[in-house]
Amino acid sequence: MARKKNENNYPDPLTVGTGLLDTIKEPGDIKKLDRQDYPKLAEEIRAFLIRHISETGGHLGSNLGAVELTMALHIALDLPKDKIIWDVGHQSYTHKLLTGRREGFENLRSYGGMSGFPKRKESDCDAFDTGHSSTSISAGLGLVRARELKGEEHTVVSVIGDGSLTGGMAYEALNNASKLKTNFIIILNDNNMSISENVGGVSHYLNSIRSAGKYLELKEDVYNSLMRSGNEGTARAIQKVKSAAKRLMVPGLIFENMGISYMGPVDGHDVETMLRLLEYAKRVKNAVVIHVRTQKGKGYLPAERHPARFHGAEPFDISTGMPKKVREKANYTDVFSTVMCRIGEAREDVVAISAAMPDGTGLKRFHNLYPDRFFDVGIAEEHAVTFAAGLAAGGLKPVVAIYSSFLQRAYDQIIHDVCIQKLPVVFAVDRAGIVGADGETHQGIFDLSYLSSIPGMTVMAPKNKWELADMLRFAVEGDSPMAVRYPRGEAYDGLQEFRSPVEYGKSEMIYDEGSICLLAVGSMVRTAAELRERLKAEGYSCSLVNVRFVKPIDPELFETAARHELVVTMEENVLMGGFGEHFRRELEEALPDAGCRVISAGIPDAYVEHGNVNILKAGLKIDAEGIYGLIKDALPEAADG
Amino acid sequence: MARKKNENNYPDPLTVGTGLLDTIKEPGDIKKLDRQDYPKLAEEIRAFLIRHISETGGHLGSNLGAVELTMALHIALDLPKDKIIWDVGHQSYTHKLLTGRREGFENLRSYGGMSGFPKRKESDCDAFDTGHSSTSISAGLGLVRARELKGEEHTVVSVIGDGSLTGGMAYEALNNASKLKTNFIIILNDNNMSISENVGGVSHYLNSIRSAGKYLELKEDVYNSLMRSGNEGTARAIQKVKSAAKRLMVPGLIFENMGISYMGPVDGHDVETMLRLLEYAKRVKNAVVIHVRTQKGKGYLPAERHPARFHGAEPFDISTGMPKKVREKANYTDVFSTVMCRIGEAREDVVAISAAMPDGTGLKRFHNLYPDRFFDVGIAEEHAVTFAAGLAAGGLKPVVAIYSSFLQRAYDQIIHDVCIQKLPVVFAVDRAGIVGADGETHQGIFDLSYLSSIPGMTVMAPKNKWELADMLRFAVEGDSPMAVRYPRGEAYDGLQEFRSPVEYGKSEMIYDEGSICLLAVGSMVRTAAELRERLKAEGYSCSLVNVRFVKPIDPELFETAARHELVVTMEENVLMGGFGEHFRRELEEALPDAGCRVISAGIPDAYVEHGNVNILKAGLKIDAEGIYGLIKDALPEAADG
Repeated sequence: MARKKNENNYPDPLTVGTGLLDTIKEPGDIKKLDRQDYPKLAEEIRAFLIRHISETGGHLGSNLGAVELTMALHIALDLPKDKIIWDVGHQSYTHKLLTGRREGFENLRSYGGMSGFPKRKESDCDAFDTGHSSTSISAGLGLVRARELKGEEHTVVSVIGDGSLTGGMAYEALNNASKLKTNFIIILNDNNMSISENVGGVSHYLNSIRSAGKYLELKEDVYNSLMRSGNEGTARAIQKVKSAAKRLMVPGLIFENMGISYMGPVDGHDVETMLRLLEYAKRVKNAVVIHVRTQKGKGYLPAERHPARFHGAEPFDISTGMPKKVREKANYTDVFSTVMCRIGEAREDVVAISAAMPDGTGLKRFHNLYPDRFFDVGIAEEHAVTFAAGLAAGGLKPVVAIYSSFLQRAYDQIIHDVCIQKLPVVFAVDRAGIVGADGETHQGIFDLSYLSSIPGMTVMAPKNKWELADMLRFAVEGDSPMAVRYPRGEAYDGLQEFRSPVEYGKSEMIYDEGSICLLAVGSMVRTAAELRERLKAEGYSCSLVNVRFVKPIDPELFETAARHELVVTMEENVLMGGFGEHFRRELEEALPDAGCRVISAGIPDAYVEHGNVNILKAGLKIDAEGIYGLIKDALPEAADG
Repeated sequence: MARKKNENNYPDPLTVGTGLLDTIKEPGDIKKLDRQDYPKLAEEIRAFLIRHISETGGHLGSNLGAVELTMALHIALDLPKDKIIWDVGHQSYTHKLLTGRREGFENLRSYGGMSGFPKRKESDCDAFDTGHSSTSISAGLGLVRARELKGEEHTVVSVIGDGSLTGGMAYEALNNASKLKTNFIIILNDNNMSISENVGGVSHYLNSIRSAGKYLELKEDVYNSLMRSGNEGTARAIQKVKSAAKRLMVPGLIFENMGISYMGPVDGHDVETMLRLLEYAKRVKNAVVIHVRTQKGKGYLPAERHPARFHGAEPFDISTGMPKKVREKANYTDVFSTVMCRIGEAREDVVAISAAMPDGTGLKRFHNLYPDRFFDVGIAEEHAVTFAAGLAAGGLKPVVAIYSSFLQRAYDQIIHDVCIQKLPVVFAVDRAGIVGADGETHQGIFDLSYLSSIPGMTVMAPKNKWELADMLRFAVEGDSPMAVRYPRGEAYDGLQEFRSPVEYGKSEMIYDEGSICLLAVGSMVRTAAELRERLKAEGYSCSLVNVRFVKPIDPELFETAARHELVVTMEENVLMGGFGEHFRRELEEALPDAGCRVISAGIPDAYVEHGNVNILKAGLKIDAEGIYGLIKDALPEAADG
């Protein structure tokens, strides 16, 4: 696609054909195109992506921004011999399209369908699986060292966004890449954005590079002037340190200072210029950064204008860019968002921290209301947590909102910086449980295990939207570390009649009946209520307890359990190290002769793929139907009804 | 102490008095000294530290290097109003000495005695607890933001070593500190060392700063020459960009590029110069780095010459610097070291990775033998693990050796980069279990929980030194992620007669007898053997199983358990999420009617302080005596003997 002066001239994606795209069936086919066809192919790819993602949903902005960059890489490299590692990986759609996976877009991110991230098991052109941020340089460096030791010859390219560069891992990897004496290409895909706006010194620095060119020009000017004026002594002195001085004056110094070569910045929507730079970069005998400037959402006006909304998009109307389905009910993030604003109003000492997710976590409203008390630290979960610990040590009440799967990054910091010191940090753990389309890397299925392993941590999970609000208020009033975990998606608004005050370490008895006792954690209370109806209909007597506190476990639950024949623990978390396991041990310690059978419903010891949440839960047997089966297996003697 | 030209002129620590030190009883007392007394006080402090640490053991090198720096901070600041955060914290001995804790050195790092790290509960002059690396800038930034929001006025100083600066968290924090508009002082204590030699681009960069001065001089020379030659047009153009160009030419550019002011480098053994810089730095209205050059081990020749040995020293003879006790038996690290060399010889595809611990992990010998196949990545556990994943994806067999408590940092990377892709990375998890004198932050008591929560991970623990060797060889032959965890200290050389081959997922029956069944993990096998003798002497029939695989659990254990009345799980790990909990659930799932009572010995849900390992284990009731008590409580009906 030619770069239009007037952005409104973008073609209608519905009218763009697939003439060139049809010729690309396998890796390398793109190399057969004439260079004058590149803009047309880019246009076809964009239209293809917009059409498909408007139907299936998916990551749009990052993919539209990386079309020409991906084309250039596929022209310059030989896949699968050469390796590309896509940081985060949500920008790999064009890569999938160019490596024979066009049909996959029909069922992108659906159960059994193509993943939205690179997967080695999906294609030998996917060199390394990604999903979380800032891993690509580490992985790429590993592939480079393996190449060296095995005496192989191929090119390794890590493609990392400027947002991912705020993650410390990327810096750890750059620090090590500096020692290389063979080629390693790092593409800095700089769109001046994380999912939301990018933050911090590095972002500021990258912006300054664009204006740094003038210092280089000035430097040349000084040199020429000295030569003209006949001041050769000084001019010779300059020549001696020419390479050093030049390094000091050109953009990319922050990389050069670390011992990594730098090229750029270059227009990331100009295939031919990128090809020239790539050819040059391939000859460099050390790590080299190519700084590519791209625009997120490029070529589709709504995505250019609303980058956060089109980061991960629901199915949308192409002409307007608006979501096809209007959400009728609030989701848990909305509830969190609202409650945080109210808490912020009531307590001036409450501050909120996000790791590059002000939109996703719902903290944007808090930010708007209390800009001084909101901190977006970039994609930096480790720092986020220890920073919060510092805020708490300074006498404030920090609320850290991080998705369950990303908080895994800060496991040590939660132990070491928050909980050993018993600092009153509140963790709002969003996306806890099955998240659906993002798949394996994003499922929030470990937090109950890793958080409850930590001494001094309190772990809560609400049954519905009102309880999320109550638990957050309770956590903020506490004087020790507390986590509240809640799932992605629509906030359950049933069981409203049960709203006993949240008390430390106390569960909530919802139905106190007979032989079967359902001990349900958070989202599983809704499932348990449904399950209980079914069991009741068959004549079983069935109690239902809302566990509320996964840690510490309410000791009253042990007495409750002992009154039943069968106890069923239910949690949307791996069974390994989860509530069910803690409960059994503590029950046996408290009441060795309780005599009840305990069975546990939870996620088995395996990763959970992408797909519709309900389909996934059914497959895992953690929906009402699946747990019903578990119970029936445990009670074979009981008659149906 | 005056800086001696001839380093052999250092005074004998046994002859140096405490005349000045005696006048320092509380924070601020140091301010009363005359400036000419500073060298004498430094000499007294060094002698005091050497005398005490030679008796108690402890961190010597880092403390000797930070004497003058700590003095300067205590003179320039008002404690406890002002805050110092000591990164890692092992260099805080002089700080403790100057804040009224001199008596604490009598029982430094002993059970019930003074910690070797900053502890808020120990003194209000300890602003933030530390232990792991690279946290201090995050925590300091939190304290600064809290100061701003509360409208307080005090100075916050984070003291971070150049080694800690290789950790990504530090960079994440610098990236955020760049946004500050109030004062925050970051002291870069640059001794050109981690525990062992420092690595990577940043280290290289810091070294280059020392020689960078000449470019600045040249720059001035150019400017003067242009003015002399009357080329005012160019000279004026230079003036316009003077501040920008100057920034580009002075040392510290890597910080300045991120928006952080930089001062230095300055001699870190010159109190008065540091005081001048500190006074200036306190007036800066943003984050400012003071680059201080120090020498690790300064003032004690053996520590200067052998920095790795004197990092964490055992009690030693002052005159020779040699340890007082000669180790008679190999420790587990020695065993690992030897086996790795043999494995390296047999398999050319085996590579080893350390995160700044080539000495501590025992990989130094592997490094010496196979320099191309060893990678010290600096204090960068996250990168270490993903780098290993990349090496494995590239067809090599990486062994990552990281201490249990530090591997917590890479929990997400183990899940996300290694295990989802089932990459055959071997984790050698040293210091797993109670480590003793380093205390809370260093106990390796979570790894069985966090590692076994991860799908696809295999978790092993050896009973003695031969089994460690066998398990490592087994792990290296495997084609999936495998962890072997082993404790700090002397390698157990008992039970040599039991050496059945390691088979995947198989436990080892050691004694197959009667009513009580001890299921012991790793180090606990030795404890169980001792315990069994005692139970046998009292007439109990007692089986002993070496669990070997914490994950997956040998299904045969369920049948074994069902044959016994009482099953005792034993592990040197927190009970929460540990082997005992997994075993109960899996037993109940496999054999709902097993009918045996299960009790679990392990570490309760609390942090474990510093002290002698045996004392700590007794207190935790995880020694033979303690577990004997547990068993007797569970079997009240059985007679003694």
